[in-house]
Amino acid sequence: MPERVEFACNGRVYRPGDAVYAVVCIDGGADEYLDEALMRGRMPNMAEIIRGGRRGMCRAQMPTFTNTNNASIITGAPPRVHGMNGNFFLDPETGEAVMMNDGRFLRAPTIVAAAAKAGRKCAVVTAKDKLRTILTKGLDGIGFSAERAGEATEVTHGIGGVEALVGEATPAIYSGDASVYVLKAGAAMVERGLADLLYLSLTDYIQHAHAPNEAAALDFYARLDEQLGRLIAAGVVLGITADHGMNAKHDETGRARVVYLEPWLAERFEGGAACRVVLPITDPYVAHHGSLGSYAVVHVAEGMDAREVAEALYEIEGVTEAHPMPRAAALLELAPDRVGDVVVMSGRDTVLGRAPEHHDLSQLGGPLRSHGGRYEEMVPMIFSRPLDEAYGARFAGDVRNFDVFEYTLNGTVV
Amino acid sequence: MPERVEFACNGRVYRPGDAVYAVVCIDGGADEYLDEALMRGRMPNMAEIIRGGRRGMCRAQMPTFTNTNNASIITGAPPRVHGMNGNFFLDPETGEAVMMNDGRFLRAPTIVAAAAKAGRKCAVVTAKDKLRTILTKGLDGIGFSAERAGEATEVTHGIGGVEALVGEATPAIYSGDASVYVLKAGAAMVERGLADLLYLSLTDYIQHAHAPNEAAALDFYARLDEQLGRLIAAGVVLGITADHGMNAKHDETGRARVVYLEPWLAERFEGGAACRVVLPITDPYVAHHGSLGSYAVVHVAEGMDAREVAEALYEIEGVTEAHPMPRAAALLELAPDRVGDVVVMSGRDTVLGRAPEHHDLSQLGGPLRSHGGRYEEMVPMIFSRPLDEAYGARFAGDVRNFDVFEYTLNGTVV
Repeated sequence: MPERVEFACNGRVYRPGDAVYAVVCIDGGADEYLDEALMRGRMPNMAEIIRGGRRGMCRAQMPTFTNTNNASIITGAPPRVHGMNGNFFLDPETGEAVMMNDGRFLRAPTIVAAAAKAGRKCAVVTAKDKLRTILTKGLDGIGFSAERAGEATEVTHGIGGVEALVGEATPAIYSGDASVYVLKAGAAMVERGLADLLYLSLTDYIQHAHAPNEAAALDFYARLDEQLGRLIAAGVVLGITADHGMNAKHDETGRARVVYLEPWLAERFEGGAACRVVLPITDPYVAHHGSLGSYAVVHVAEGMDAREVAEALYEIEGVTEAHPMPRAAALLELAPDRVGDVVVMSGRDTVLGRAPEHHDLSQLGGPLRSHGGRYEEMVPMIFSRPLDEAYGARFAGDVRNFDVFEYTLNGTVV
Repeated sequence: MPERVEFACNGRVYRPGDAVYAVVCIDGGADEYLDEALMRGRMPNMAEIIRGGRRGMCRAQMPTFTNTNNASIITGAPPRVHGMNGNFFLDPETGEAVMMNDGRFLRAPTIVAAAAKAGRKCAVVTAKDKLRTILTKGLDGIGFSAERAGEATEVTHGIGGVEALVGEATPAIYSGDASVYVLKAGAAMVERGLADLLYLSLTDYIQHAHAPNEAAALDFYARLDEQLGRLIAAGVVLGITADHGMNAKHDETGRARVVYLEPWLAERFEGGAACRVVLPITDPYVAHHGSLGSYAVVHVAEGMDAREVAEALYEIEGVTEAHPMPRAAALLELAPDRVGDVVVMSGRDTVLGRAPEHHDLSQLGGPLRSHGGRYEEMVPMIFSRPLDEAYGARFAGDVRNFDVFEYTLNGTVV
């Protein structure tokens, strides 16, 4: 039986019981995917989990990007605290765009690192390796990615022989397999007593490529369900949420709806050509979204007024919000030194780009599906056990996806 | 068999087939209510409808109020076209608050009125009588409310003897019965060949009072399900959506989270005490929400700058958006002459009020649940038949709840 411990992290106190706990982040796991798969009988284990536990909706962290939300979930805090406003920011000192694919950008300790210090056997498994380097910061435990499962060693990752443990070779990162592999690895570790507090973070390759009612999405969720069943069978208490939703960002002919901000700024403002647009969704996995999401940051040119630019951005059809700093950081709970001058967001079916030449849409596997804005903010949260009275009452309110560890460890009746 | 007709309304062309069609608006029908009832086996007919048809999410019209969205659904257009920005507006000529509970405020023809002119046998049934007077404008057909079912006569409502037809006395308006009665009346009319194109609009009494996982909500949805099954058995092609979602607007102790705008304005701005706040959720059904929703309009005092007020409103914790006119009207597609100076919206768990003395929270039946803002914008849309290829492709995009008549009449495969 896992040890009963109590520990604090970023202002919250965690009191896990003597059960094995796993928090699962379904990357791009919009609620509609669950609805479709559940109604078509493709997730029998999830149906059982919900009937015996609790299901609801929670609010993800803006911008609705993967790094931002995974960092929030694993620290239990918004970017104001952990610093990961996106995958990318423009360093104000060097003027260079910096990719935050590294633990050194994370400004707060993680819940799993704190749990490990307190005596729990912790494991973090991600699909993408970029995320592992952030999420395993300070962790005295197991941490590896499906993408590079074969490279994990006892010394560097707290575990070796992952392929043998899972019984499968390292999967391709552009696949549903990468996510299934994360859950298989989690289940295998629990079955062998290697871990008793896990964070399992999937990839949204399938959701970027397929709508909820498509066969490929249903098949993917059926495969996830099989592994969720395996985790439940191993006695794991599950907390399940998502980093962001996912929406079609194209018209009915499949053509992407993109607002290119740099040419617009150049046209609209004298000197506007010197504005620089940063797209913090940008990451090495370009086939997912071509760096196009529903959230962008404008660094205005010398002498331009950020408030005036924000005001003008509302003239663009498809723009839903535009906030100058410092309002942007206050409203979205961002780290103010890593934002830029103006935050822009677009609608359910619209993405924001720099200029056409910066985006190679031919790399996309199909019509653009993406995220980053407000319309990907509401995501599911599910527990495999009922919540106690206090957490049950709180669950009616404005629950955040980064509350998931607290609810799972403290609030579930085990 | 109903006649095949073609007609136009507000720029769209409708081509219903020879089936009987009914559009159902589940007032306050947040998707979570369906999820809970479906997962607990309380909506077997809805499960069948979804498996044989199509389910997805769509975007309601802002502000997410009942009159606004019912007017949008029945005209197929935003308030910019039909004029119903809310239940209430401040008449700029008289300076008086005017309740828009009357067809004379509706500036656009309705789809049902146009269908009736083209030869279809149309019926509009609402739970609340206030809504009937708006939605039956220009209708040569049947139109009555559950609230005053007993008062309907052939001359005034296109039908008499409703209580005999339904087999039940007029229900209480503060009840789930009022909604069930609407569906019963619709089914009875179809069964007797009295109508072949129906709009059935429910009331959100239950959703204001109960969270999705509460027994009263589950029982209510089970009762709706029974009548949906009856409509399906009568051969009706169903399109189902909601006017708005519903969220808890209180903390974990049950205390409402209210931002009172008038005292804040008085404090924040010199002369701010002369600002007037209008809450367009206000209606005669005060037990639902005490006039507290997540959307408010500020009429600024003489000499004050609306842009400056909007900017300042972001200083309030819980305020998510503030837009001065004319941006507010452009962004939300409102009738610009019925807005006011600044539109304010609040978060998932927060409502906006005038001042404490204007809101009697003791009239609420329980902890406040309400709507009006962005977090009640996404609602379900369900069809009992598959969509054809063209509408199926469009359904992946930014579908609006007021597209429901077009999808149901033109896009379902019957």
